[in-house]
Formats: sequence, structure tokens, C-alpha cells
Amino acid sequence: MAEKALSGAGLRGQVAGKTALSTVGKTGSGLTYRGYDIKDLAKNCEFEEVAHLIFYGELPTSAQLVEYKALLKSMRGLPQALKEVLERIPADAHPMDVMRTGCSMLGNLEGEDSFAQQLEKANRLLAAFPSIICYWYRFTHDDVRIETETDDNSIGGHFLHMLRGEKPNPLHEQVMNVSLILYAEHEFNASTFTARVCASTLSDLFSCITGAIGTLRGPLHGGANEAAMELIESFSSPDEAEQGLLCMLERKEKIMGFGHAIYRESDPRNEIIKTWAEKLAEDVGDTRLYPVSVRCEAVMWREKKLFCNADFFHASAYHFMGIPTKLFTPIFVMSRVTGWAAHVFEQRADNRIIRPSAEYVGVEPRTVTPIAKRG
Amino acid sequence: MAEKALSGAGLRGQVAGKTALSTVGKTGSGLTYRGYDIKDLAKNCEFEEVAHLIFYGELPTSAQLVEYKALLKSMRGLPQALKEVLERIPADAHPMDVMRTGCSMLGNLEGEDSFAQQLEKANRLLAAFPSIICYWYRFTHDDVRIETETDDNSIGGHFLHMLRGEKPNPLHEQVMNVSLILYAEHEFNASTFTARVCASTLSDLFSCITGAIGTLRGPLHGGANEAAMELIESFSSPDEAEQGLLCMLERKEKIMGFGHAIYRESDPRNEIIKTWAEKLAEDVGDTRLYPVSVRCEAVMWREKKLFCNADFFHASAYHFMGIPTKLFTPIFVMSRVTGWAAHVFEQRADNRIIRPSAEYVGVEPRTVTPIAKRG
Repeated sequence: MAEKALSGAGLRGQVAGKTALSTVGKTGSGLTYRGYDIKDLAKNCEFEEVAHLIFYGELPTSAQLVEYKALLKSMRGLPQALKEVLERIPADAHPMDVMRTGCSMLGNLEGEDSFAQQLEKANRLLAAFPSIICYWYRFTHDDVRIETETDDNSIGGHFLHMLRGEKPNPLHEQVMNVSLILYAEHEFNASTFTARVCASTLSDLFSCITGAIGTLRGPLHGGANEAAMELIESFSSPDEAEQGLLCMLERKEKIMGFGHAIYRESDPRNEIIKTWAEKLAEDVGDTRLYPVSVRCEAVMWREKKLFCNADFFHASAYHFMGIPTKLFTPIFVMSRVTGWAAHVFEQRADNRIIRPSAEYVGVEPRTVTPIAKRG
Repeated sequence: MAEKALSGAGLRGQVAGKTALSTVGKTGSGLTYRGYDIKDLAKNCEFEEVAHLIFYGELPTSAQLVEYKALLKSMRGLPQALKEVLERIPADAHPMDVMRTGCSMLGNLEGEDSFAQQLEKANRLLAAFPSIICYWYRFTHDDVRIETETDDNSIGGHFLHMLRGEKPNPLHEQVMNVSLILYAEHEFNASTFTARVCASTLSDLFSCITGAIGTLRGPLHGGANEAAMELIESFSSPDEAEQGLLCMLERKEKIMGFGHAIYRESDPRNEIIKTWAEKLAEDVGDTRLYPVSVRCEAVMWREKKLFCNADFFHASAYHFMGIPTKLFTPIFVMSRVTGWAAHVFEQRADNRIIRPSAEYVGVEPRTVTPIAKRG
């Protein structure tokens, strides 16, 4: 078979399949889920409506939403064997390794026996991920075995409730809702593409999502909001931030939370989460992290024409809600599992195994020298 | 950025990167690892020599091999927390889910803190996978907690010893050795490509291998030798096999173990494992499964010009050694972890995040209808 060299490394700009789930960076609409602009969804919907849209193709009616939320609520409990596994993961483990292992273990206990179960299993993961991360976190950090079956009205509220042991205030629940909407789906990013490659062998949903979690874990993909938090926290004032960034730029250090592989002028998710970060700053009386963040944005644009991506203002927003920095990327999983699973469904519906070729750059043919004569 | 449509689905025939590890289906040499023909390696090397070749670039000298085998031997033990996790996976779980979970859990306990550890961690996984699958299998099926730190001289011998509770005979150890060599590496197959996509976000080795296991799990990829076994076992004689296959072909049923995504005329691994399957058949006095397998090969070639791939005669070979069918694909993992890890090293050495694009085939832009008005 004739092989074609691709123009760019990393398959950049190469169409590797079809999707009806989202558009990224098309003119006139930065990000759409099934035709809806992300701004429209973030303003007018709950995350569970968006999950319904992604999984079932349409936004729910009021009655459907009530039913869907009740279904997800009923799936928040964790089997005893999974809890016992989570209790054996050390407190200093990488939280994304916890998510990956929790997902993989659940596949042993409640596996997908046939693709007819795919929606049920996707909803189960959507409902269970907040329980998985909070159960492990509270057990290893606070020495308590929490009850994961709460009656919170939303996934975001459920997460905050388990994390802090008390009902969240409405503003926080609202911001979690928006945040989960913003991270839900993003076309053929690396973790989603992993899920599709895995799905293309007709493997099960738990394998696909486990692989996607491992891919999102990488600092070039999911870890950017945590890195942004570390950056912001390192500055005590906007002026110090400006000086610090200029030094970093001069030393050509990588600064996380800016620019994007696909977007060229702005990330449509930034202005949304920035507005909410500002509200949260006011709410907690912050006079440092938000102004520092705003200055970072201005400096990076002035110096490098680099814009904030979705991750940058997420950092301070999560921080203002009392979420530990190391749990930022697991929240990404709690949201993106919707996009991942929907891509698996699409891949299965029109599948060919994803098996590209490689350019060989190794040694010429050679023959084995008997071991006694090597050296 | 201009997007290019690819000629075939599944990225078939598209170069997605470079490798120095292997060639598949190039004229004159069906399969090479770092320049060595697979037949040459299978005839003249132990699997540990091939693992050394794949990881370090060269076949070892006698002294290096002694040292390398001692290193691997020292890494066969499992941490207590991992054993406790394996004990919580039910006996009826999919053994590939066990491998995936075992690998992921080990990443929590002995994570890769920096890429400087990548070879150490790869060797650890190579040494630990037989322990992981056998510990779980024997605990859940035979109700014993086995000692995984044996002094067997080879990985194949270690596996057979733990599985059966007694030292394997030399013929069986030799066949395991050949089998592990044959499955070690195969360019950009789907599971390897998953490992590379995961590596491209700069994620850790355990995430990459966990994702690859989940991808190999799919019936279009790793499960073919198990499916071949079920087929062969369903026939009591060569004549019955011929009749059965003809019926299946007439009904256009998928027959596993034949043909290949890349090879066009034959799979170079088939004649090697076929020879060993014949030896094992003689050894156990088989008069059914091997002759049935030979007849299947003849019928598929005569009727469809389809050749046996690596998986077909592996089925009877493993069976003659007393290996349960459900453990066939985990053996593939015990071998392919070498190729997977080496591809991760290559990706890291010259990385760009793998992030292709998608052709959008969804609905046109639309606006959110207030929920009360939907229906």
C-alpha cells in the first residue's frame, strides 16, 4: 500500500475521522456542541442538560431533565470492592492515577458486557467519578469514609458537598456547573483521540475512558490549570507578576494557561470563566489572585500576543471555591467523560480499526551474531 | 490551518510518525526488530535478549544478558497493596481488565516520577506482568496466594511455573520464549499507537501502558488467539472443520486468526509458531487440535486466499501447554510491553502532541430554546 507522509508532526491539521459532536475554532463560532455555541450553553443550561445533549443528541425537556438527574443521582454509590481499592492508594499518589485506577477497577466490577449497555455505563461513570475522587481524597487526607450517595441536585454540587462535608453555597454550585459545561467536549484532542483509537479495536467503554484519563494526565494536556495556579500563587501583586512573567519570557520558560493548538485569536471559554472568577473573587474578598491573573493576561497579550485559554482563569476560580490544586485535573475528567464516551459511541457506529503506518528510520537489515561472539 | 482529508478510514497507510524499532511487511523481510529478521531472532535468541534489543538498541553480550536477567528476576515481587487490589477483582472478570487495573495500580505505588526512570519502570512492568496475572488467577481460581518471586531462569518459565505450581518442562519454556519474541513489537498497531498518543501529552509510562492494554483488549486486536481457540475446539476432526468453515464462509461469518491489516501474502510469525505447535502436539499425543488447525489453514487459503496470522497456531500451542484460553491475551501483554514502552521512549525523544482534526458532520448552528419551551 502506498504510504503518504503527513505535512505536520502530531497529525496536526489532518482529518482523522468524522464527528457530529463539536466544532473547534471554526469562523464565527469558537466552540459548539452539537450546533450550540458554548456561550449560549454556559449561560442558559445546567451541566446535566449539556451531558444529555452530548449523549442523546438533544437538550432535554423539563420532564426529561428531572428524570435524567434522578437517574444520575441513583448511580452515585461505589461498590465495596472499589472503596477498598481506593483506600489502598496512598495519599501522595497523583489524583489522575486515582481516577484512572478507579475507572479501571469499576470495569472489573460492573463491566460493559455488550455495546447495548454503552449509555448506561457512560452515565454510571459520569455519576461515579466525583464519588471516586472524593472518597479517595477524604479517606487519605481526612481519614474519613464519606457517604457518596448524597441528594445534591447537581453533579457539581455533589462534588463540592463530598469534598468539603457541607452543602455548597449556590454561587459555587453555579460556577461548578459552568466549569463542567466548558470542559465537556473538544473534538479530536489527544485524550479523546486515545478513546477513539481504543474504541476502534471494539474494546469496552471502561478501557477507552481509562486510556483517555491517562492521556489527559500529561502536562501538555490536562495539567495546565494546576500549572497556572502554581504560577499565579507565586506572585504577591500584579506588579510582581508582571516582573516575574517578563523574566520568564526572557528565559524562554514555558508558561501554562496561554495559547492553544487549534484556536488562533482567543479561547471562547476564557471570557466565560473569567467573569465567574471575578464574581468569586468579590465573594471571597480576594485582592491578590484575581488582579494577578488579570495582569498576567495583559502582559502575555502585550508581549507575545498569547491569549488565556480555558485553563487560566479556571485556576483562581477553583481556588476561590476551596478546591485543592491537585484536584483540578480530576474535575476535567468529571466533565470530559461526556465527550469521550460520545466519541466512543461515534467510533463504534462507523468503525475501522485505527492503525496508521510509521516511517522507518532504524538500522539496515542485519543478522544475529551468536551471543558468545558479541561484544 | 488547511485540513487534509485522508484517503482511508482508520489512518490506514498514513505515516503518523517515525520509528527505529521495527518494519512490518516491507519487501524481502516480513518483520524486523531493529534490523533483525523475526525468524533469525526466534531461532537464535531468548526473549530477554530481544527485550534488551528493543529497550537498549542492541542484543546483549553474555555478561549483559546474565546481568539483565538478574535485574528482571529481582523485580518479580508485588507490593502488598497491589496483591490486595488483585484479590478484590472477581474470578469472572476479563483477564485484560485485571492486567489494565494491575498496571494502573502499580503506577500509584511505584510511579514514574521523571522520565529518567523510564527504563527502570519498563523493566519493572516486564518483570511484574506475569506475577500480576498469575497472582490474580491462582487466588480467584485456586484459592491460593502464590509466591511470585521464583528463581526461574526466564520470563516464560516464571509464568508457567506460577500458573501451574511446578517447574515447566524445557520444551514448554522454549515455546513460551519463542512466543514472547514473536509478539514483542509490531510498529504502529492500534495499541502501540494508543501508547504514543498518550505519551505525546508527556504523561507517565504507567498511563501509556494502561491505555495500550485497554486497546489490545478489543476483539479486533488482541483477542484473536482466544477466538481461534474457540473455533478449533468446536471441531472434532479435520473433516468436520472443513465442513464447518465452509458453512461459516457461506454465512459470511468473521473467522478470527486469518489475514492481517498490513501483511498481504503471509504473516512471517505463522510458520514459526506452527512448527512449535506441531512439536507440542507430538509431545502431548494430540490427534485432533493440530490436524484440525492444519485443515483450517488449508481451507481458508484454498477458499479465500487468507493466510494464518500469528494468532492462529498460537491457540493450539498455548492449549497444549495447559494455558487456559482466557489467559492468551495477557501473554500478549507480557511480551508487547517491550514494544509499547520503547515506542513511548521514541515519542518522548522527539515529541509533538498528537492532535488530529475531525470532519464535522453534525447539525448546523442553532440557539438554545428555554427549557420550558422545549418538547
